[in-house]
Amino acid sequence: MTLILSNDDVEKLLTMKDAIDVLEEAYVELAEGRGVSRTRSDCFTATERPDALYSLKSMDGVVPKLGVGAVRINSDIVTWPSDGDSSRRVKVPSAPGNRYVGLVLLFSSKTGEPLAIFPDGVMQRIRVGAANGLGVKYLARENARTVALLGSGWQAGAQAMAVCAVRDIETIRVFSPNKNNREAFAKEWSAALGVNIVPVATAEKAVKNADIVMCATNVLQPVFFEKWIEPGMHVSSIKRPEVEGAAIKRADICVVHSNDGKPIHVVAKGIDVAEAREDGKGWGVASDIDFKTLPTLPHLLSGRAPKRSNDEQVTFFLNNIGLGYQFAACGAVVYRKAMAAKMGHELPTDWFTEDVHP
Amino acid sequence: MTLILSNDDVEKLLTMKDAIDVLEEAYVELAEGRGVSRTRSDCFTATERPDALYSLKSMDGVVPKLGVGAVRINSDIVTWPSDGDSSRRVKVPSAPGNRYVGLVLLFSSKTGEPLAIFPDGVMQRIRVGAANGLGVKYLARENARTVALLGSGWQAGAQAMAVCAVRDIETIRVFSPNKNNREAFAKEWSAALGVNIVPVATAEKAVKNADIVMCATNVLQPVFFEKWIEPGMHVSSIKRPEVEGAAIKRADICVVHSNDGKPIHVVAKGIDVAEAREDGKGWGVASDIDFKTLPTLPHLLSGRAPKRSNDEQVTFFLNNIGLGYQFAACGAVVYRKAMAAKMGHELPTDWFTEDVHP
Repeated sequence: MTLILSNDDVEKLLTMKDAIDVLEEAYVELAEGRGVSRTRSDCFTATERPDALYSLKSMDGVVPKLGVGAVRINSDIVTWPSDGDSSRRVKVPSAPGNRYVGLVLLFSSKTGEPLAIFPDGVMQRIRVGAANGLGVKYLARENARTVALLGSGWQAGAQAMAVCAVRDIETIRVFSPNKNNREAFAKEWSAALGVNIVPVATAEKAVKNADIVMCATNVLQPVFFEKWIEPGMHVSSIKRPEVEGAAIKRADICVVHSNDGKPIHVVAKGIDVAEAREDGKGWGVASDIDFKTLPTLPHLLSGRAPKRSNDEQVTFFLNNIGLGYQFAACGAVVYRKAMAAKMGHELPTDWFTEDVHP
Repeated sequence: MTLILSNDDVEKLLTMKDAIDVLEEAYVELAEGRGVSRTRSDCFTATERPDALYSLKSMDGVVPKLGVGAVRINSDIVTWPSDGDSSRRVKVPSAPGNRYVGLVLLFSSKTGEPLAIFPDGVMQRIRVGAANGLGVKYLARENARTVALLGSGWQAGAQAMAVCAVRDIETIRVFSPNKNNREAFAKEWSAALGVNIVPVATAEKAVKNADIVMCATNVLQPVFFEKWIEPGMHVSSIKRPEVEGAAIKRADICVVHSNDGKPIHVVAKGIDVAEAREDGKGWGVASDIDFKTLPTLPHLLSGRAPKRSNDEQVTFFLNNIGLGYQFAACGAVVYRKAMAAKMGHELPTDWFTEDVHP
């Protein structure tokens, strides 16, 4: 049978600890060359709505040790509303029922069969959180107790979960431009994590004296600046443009998620997508930094790149691009637990396989 | 609702004429830059079976004019049994029920929603046939009546259908090494196409005096050679290595399917996949030909590359690599016809969409 799982199922099944543990194992596989990851690709074309684009995104990965491969697909109607001086990428939920479209297809690398199909949303933020959590685990000071969290949206919750999973955090100071949002976030996540979460009115107030800074925004402009760096600080980012290029250059150790650096962009003629521009400027402010040569999280976890060696070093982890590989690893856990718990809709595997040699 | 269709459904719904017509339209969209196509990627890792590899292959395309995007995925256990001096790629049907795994996911480029999911097998050969059929339509002599068909397998049938759809063919001489196979092919397809199909004992006998030569094999070695070229001949190939490099160089006009030329190969360390070797030699004998600079089928169909201008020219069409784009275009036809005929299993679209911003 092929399992159809929902986001609710994935939320029940995949804990942050699960994700951190399985990714820690899977990244070593990747660094040692047994696992493989195919760079994300983004196709952009016109769509019916004149102020939007259609985006078809895919990324693949295989973790033979876990017996799985995965393809993650996003089929989005995307807009870039202008918002003062920062420009955000906003997906428009245009599928029936005003819904988004993101799917993970999980395959067996032993038999090829489709094991499960599930939406990507819940796993998406858990795996982002888990990767940044591993960055904290391997790079932040052991005695880090105070976190600045920049952003209070969907991704910020996972970042809070992740940092608390790998360090004994006492205080998280959360900033986001909307007062109600940051206050609601503090209330919700204080209760969920049993940690003191304090909403603050500026990013500077959050960052001052923080041991760890976690950027978790959806803006395509810097939100963390060089002038805010303090000795011993660990700075973490969920997307490349969040951190000022000059800040990255001050790091004693800077680790990126992947050397893939930039997606494969395939853009219809006459369409201008800032993040797909050839000069790379739209894709992040730090375009003079060669992400292809920096050590990666898999390098770090497998001992191929140095960890922090003292409490004064400034360390950065830039989660510069997501990998389908992460969905394969986390998918292996979800599938195993779903089978054990008999969750999801079972469909005949024959519907997704064939008797003709394709 | 999201439709789950079977190969049987696709076979009932998608005629060779449908595929040729929709691809002719879609290739023009591609040449004019409104449609986009993401190069196929092949991930290779170890699998449980020691003499095999796991291959996870994907390709994407969007045809906004038809309102669709598609991702085609193959999840295969692959072997390369040695067969005398030719080496064939053989997929092992390892999914439950000894089945293969190839899937097409069709999305709406208007709403993003998943419209349909279906196995790729039947459409795979129809779209290969249709592409080569369009090569014949635009490059072969108008008065071509005699075809040499090299190969008598699954792909050969589609090539026969395709050539008969675009020219008034009187005779097809079919050769394949196994006598029983070529005789069975001739019998089956004579009846199906109403054309005189003659099995012959050697490739030379098939090719001699043929107006059109269609290679439709699964070997990774040349099956058509320079010495067989005759004035006015059109030579068609379904994969790059089938035609000797020296033969290609003799062409007055040589058109390829795509300038992508070569898939994105992501291969686990220590694994040697002939077709993924860096030097490109394993990927075809004609490695000194730069497939990136040759005119493509979309160029030809949109008037960006010359057609045949007289009956003496030697023309080649090399179907060097498949495109997810073809599955999007053919998928649009299948989906429209399936909805009209109320075919397939309907699943709730909510199963494949989500209310969280991924």
